[in-house]
Formats: sequence, structure tokens, C-alpha cells
Amino acid sequence: MKKSLGKGTHAMPTPVWLVGTYDSEGKPNLATVAWGGVCCSDPASVTVSLRKSRHSYDAILKRRAFTINVPSQAFVRAADYAGMASGRDADKFAVAGLTAVRSELVDAPYVAEFPLVIECRLLQVVEIGVHTQFIGEIMDVKADEEVLDENGIADPAKVLPLVYSPTNRTYYGLGEVVGKGFEIGKQLMK
Amino acid sequence: MKKSLGKGTHAMPTPVWLVGTYDSEGKPNLATVAWGGVCCSDPASVTVSLRKSRHSYDAILKRRAFTINVPSQAFVRAADYAGMASGRDADKFAVAGLTAVRSELVDAPYVAEFPLVIECRLLQVVEIGVHTQFIGEIMDVKADEEVLDENGIADPAKVLPLVYSPTNRTYYGLGEVVGKGFEIGKQLMK
Repeated sequence: MKKSLGKGTHAMPTPVWLVGTYDSEGKPNLATVAWGGVCCSDPASVTVSLRKSRHSYDAILKRRAFTINVPSQAFVRAADYAGMASGRDADKFAVAGLTAVRSELVDAPYVAEFPLVIECRLLQVVEIGVHTQFIGEIMDVKADEEVLDENGIADPAKVLPLVYSPTNRTYYGLGEVVGKGFEIGKQLMK
Repeated sequence: MKKSLGKGTHAMPTPVWLVGTYDSEGKPNLATVAWGGVCCSDPASVTVSLRKSRHSYDAILKRRAFTINVPSQAFVRAADYAGMASGRDADKFAVAGLTAVRSELVDAPYVAEFPLVIECRLLQVVEIGVHTQFIGEIMDVKADEEVLDENGIADPAKVLPLVYSPTNRTYYGLGEVVGKGFEIGKQLMK
């Protein structure tokens, strides 16, 4: 017998991604989101949701671009900070000790120190409610050489991404390998 | 210096959610998705993306409803299986040894054995490319009593959700607590 918890966003897990943008004055900014995910394989696309009050909201609409920056566990303070402070008042890159690199593909900066970054051009804007969802087409993914496995793929055990649970507002690391996709379930195929 | 990996969906982490639907004959079905996430706080809403070829695609459009079922690690085989088999050919609930419970709020079934389930009514349909994104308004969240913490909130350490990385197609468990949201970053606030 399950207990009703009401209409909240009691889902898990969610990502911890820092959205990189240039504001109207060209200042690089970051906004941490847990509301987002991959949404399409072709064109390869991702979503991030932002409130209209966020400084990054206007930036994405004006520049038609954003980056998704995947922090390692070691950057948990920067990630949490960038979700609380506003780019109107603070230079979040400077405060967090991060370096903004200008993307050559889209009009947005990415974080030099993070192991995995995704450069997106704005594809669609979806109004939902207090959050607006931005759908970005992935123009390129870039990763530090050190986090690539022998196949040239970003290895989660080296990226060490943060995992968030909105239920208890807590950041987790990645756990142990539980199984391989499109493999472990074959045991149940007839 | 970062290495370019191209336009793939090399993001992480993603959720592992089983989408519950009734098909046109009223048979309960499940489809596992990693393309999805929370998209809005009010109305509390989530997204799942499906290819048009999936049996669940028509089901969601016809019933205007779906559930999101969060499996514990122990259900990794069922989760992987439900992402490979088609509900046209198989009774996935039966094969995976799962029980379909009829939601009283939306026209979709949820999984009795999973610790956390989310009942959604279809809010928007967003065409992106090979995937269609379904935005669902959360009508209720239900959890097993055993996974609730002392505040009545679903505790990730008890739910033990799967975490997926599409880069290497691997399921992970949840790792250690790295920090508290809206807390650990305060050290950087001026």
C-alpha cells in the first residue's frame, strides 16, 4: 500500500548541470539546473528549464544558445552556489574560481575546469508554468582527454558527475555499476 | 584542451524511469526511458521522450495519461528488459514479474513493486525529431512507507534509484552523499 505524497516534483534522480550563457553585456554567466535532461536522439537535443526571473533566461533568448557543463563531484560547492546566486549581482565564474571559454560553435561560454561540456543552439522554447523549457540542439560535446575510456567515450567513473534528488535536496555521487544497458535485460527476452 | 566528441547525446546522468500506460485494448504496458526529467515546479511536471514507433506512444496520446515508475536497483533486469521488448509482442508486466495497479487519478497503471511512482496527465506534446516529448502534469506521487524518511519524504538511500549514463550505456547505483542543496554553496555567497 503506497502513501500519497501529493503533487510535488518528487522524482529522482535528476542531473546537476550548469547552464553557460553570455548576458546582454557579454558577461559570462552560469545557472545550475536539476530540471532538465536529454530529450531527443536525432537531432541530439537536451532540455533545461528556467524561471523567467533568472538572469540566464533573457540570455538564452537573445543569444539563441547555451552550454551544459557537467561538474565533477569536486565542484559541488560551485554547482550549488551557481544555483543560488544571480548573475545580475555576481560574477559567478570569478567567485567560483572557474574559467569561461568562448565556444566557437555557439554564442555561449563553457567551463574550462569541468570534464564534460555540451554546446547547444536554441531549438525550441516551451512555456509550461513557472518554468520555461529550453530545448537545445547539441552542436558538439567536448571532454577532457583524461575522462575518456579506451573507446574515446566519456567514462562516468572518471567524469564523476553529481546526481541530485529533489526530494531531500541532496547531491550524491555516482554509485557502483549495476548492469549494462541493452544487455542485462536480455535474460528476460523470449 | 578538450577533445571534440561530436553531436551525440553524451550527457550524464540520466534517470531510469518506466513509463506505465494502457494500450488500446486496455493491456498495461511499460517502456523504459532515459530521455526525460523534471521540467517545471508549478504545475509540477515531468517529461518523457518516446519514438513514434513505440507502443506506448499511441497509448499516451489516446489515454492522455501515463505514470513514471522509479525502479530500485534490484529491478535493473526488468528496467532494461522493458526498454528493449515491445508491448505489441509481450506482456512486459507478466514477463518481468510486476503487478499493474490501476491509478485512481489518471488512466494509466503503475508498478506495485517499485518504491516510488508518479501519476501524470498529459499536458503538452512537443515534436522534436525522432523523439516526441510528452510533458505530464504530476497529479500525485506515491511511495512505499518503507522508503520515507522521518519527514515523510522519499529517501534516495532507501529508494535506491538507478542512474544511467548514455555515454557507455551503463546503469549505476546512487553513490555517497556529497552535499546538501542550497547549503553547501553558501560558503561562496558574499
